[in-house]
Amino acid sequence: MRFFSFEQKGHSSVGVLLSADAKEFVDFASLGSKLPNDLLELIKIPDGLAQAYDQAKRAPTSSYKSLSKVKYKTLIENPSKVVCMGLNYADHAKEGGNARPEFPSFFLRGNASLATHQAPLIRPRASDKLDYEAELALVIGKRARHLTPQNALAHVAGYACFNDGSIRDFQRKSSQWTLGKNFDQTGGFGPCLVTPEELPEAANGLRIQTRLNGKTMQDANTNDFLWGVVESLCIITECMTMEPGDVIITGTPAGVGYARTPPVWMKPGDVCEIDIEGIGVLSNTIADE
Amino acid sequence: MRFFSFEQKGHSSVGVLLSADAKEFVDFASLGSKLPNDLLELIKIPDGLAQAYDQAKRAPTSSYKSLSKVKYKTLIENPSKVVCMGLNYADHAKEGGNARPEFPSFFLRGNASLATHQAPLIRPRASDKLDYEAELALVIGKRARHLTPQNALAHVAGYACFNDGSIRDFQRKSSQWTLGKNFDQTGGFGPCLVTPEELPEAANGLRIQTRLNGKTMQDANTNDFLWGVVESLCIITECMTMEPGDVIITGTPAGVGYARTPPVWMKPGDVCEIDIEGIGVLSNTIADE
Repeated sequence: MRFFSFEQKGHSSVGVLLSADAKEFVDFASLGSKLPNDLLELIKIPDGLAQAYDQAKRAPTSSYKSLSKVKYKTLIENPSKVVCMGLNYADHAKEGGNARPEFPSFFLRGNASLATHQAPLIRPRASDKLDYEAELALVIGKRARHLTPQNALAHVAGYACFNDGSIRDFQRKSSQWTLGKNFDQTGGFGPCLVTPEELPEAANGLRIQTRLNGKTMQDANTNDFLWGVVESLCIITECMTMEPGDVIITGTPAGVGYARTPPVWMKPGDVCEIDIEGIGVLSNTIADE
Repeated sequence: MRFFSFEQKGHSSVGVLLSADAKEFVDFASLGSKLPNDLLELIKIPDGLAQAYDQAKRAPTSSYKSLSKVKYKTLIENPSKVVCMGLNYADHAKEGGNARPEFPSFFLRGNASLATHQAPLIRPRASDKLDYEAELALVIGKRARHLTPQNALAHVAGYACFNDGSIRDFQRKSSQWTLGKNFDQTGGFGPCLVTPEELPEAANGLRIQTRLNGKTMQDANTNDFLWGVVESLCIITECMTMEPGDVIITGTPAGVGYARTPPVWMKPGDVCEIDIEGIGVLSNTIADE
């Protein structure tokens, strides 16, 4: 099942894709459903996504709308937390001059840092050091604390692509990366929420790539995670309660711009795509603040 | 002006204190006001706090309620961001073995990590290394980006006490402190929002203390900030938009538990107070998860 959030005539709605390569979608608003027409609210209802999908499947094909004209909204607009992992691929740790870590690094992104599929990522006034980071995002489906390897995956609503856009000079101004990860509208998120049964268990074995203006810059596989989805869920929920709609992004592989010679920084007009096998392609242009 | 959030019969309400040492308060719900009975919503309205205070002043003294029986709620329950500064007092940087920093360190706390005045701070199952940190909190009053030294203070709704409760072993498991700062219900926040005109400009020159079971553990002054309120607002809003109700906590001075010989960890039954001159005393007991 694949869902996205979009906007029409000032209202937000949920779009349902009936296949991975669909060019048309079902507008949940058109179904007259009693379920909420909001992706986060659907996630909060037990079995809500499956019920919504079942209703969408019964929509007449005459009601389908074209994907090409859709104005996407951020997949989950106001998650209570976006928990970010750093250095979760050994090759990326190495290119940044970091030892293979003993424990994952974590930071948080605020909601104002999120950017919608097909909307611009913003290069701020303060810096021209805007870099990309392809990441697998997972969205929590049920309140979760003290998860175990046995029950962790039952708390995942689905997966999406994330571009953990980073302002590298601000990331390095102190030992703490948070500031460089929280510039307004720098973190691409989308395009769709893909539910777990569409993917290998724990989203393992998926090719993950960044293309900048069509050129492949990162090309790795989620089976190279130092801490996979299950372990990450267990570590995070040992510390904090995750709520439905909360997001975890799982770190980026090698190939980022700052570690290249010469460094590559994204600039206005560039197009950056995050492509994760079986999930989709998140695309953002770059624009100046 | 002093405001707090409290709960009665399952509803939340705003309490208004008519003086710093008042033993009674005005329950905003009792006024029949057309203004929202919610501190964050009042902050969002231009001049909302002043209007609410004016209405409270006109309440008959017969309607006053006793503070002693109040069940506090977290001052702002769901700020869109809690931006935290680290190493903002030179003596605390030194006691942790850190050089005097060139730039402040930042991390974020999620809302689930906040704790209400007079509610317990939670020592988690995962660790017994729960430490206190007295901090001045400021609450944003107006949407803010690219603030300048000239206009920064006009964007502050008020000040409060914060206890940046830290799980030290998790804080040090990687280079990034975020995990150790985000255990559920470890960050005390309150008791009141005190508006700027009650305090020296930029809350400068205020004594700030931690008492643990009555013993003074931290004792410093906000005039020892490496980056004061104005500079901090300028730095943060160079990077991100701050929304009304967002919180900034400004770092802690020397005297924390982990830097002592032997280290001091808070344990169930302990009472930890953060006392900031002119603002109030935030009090939390410690309880096991």
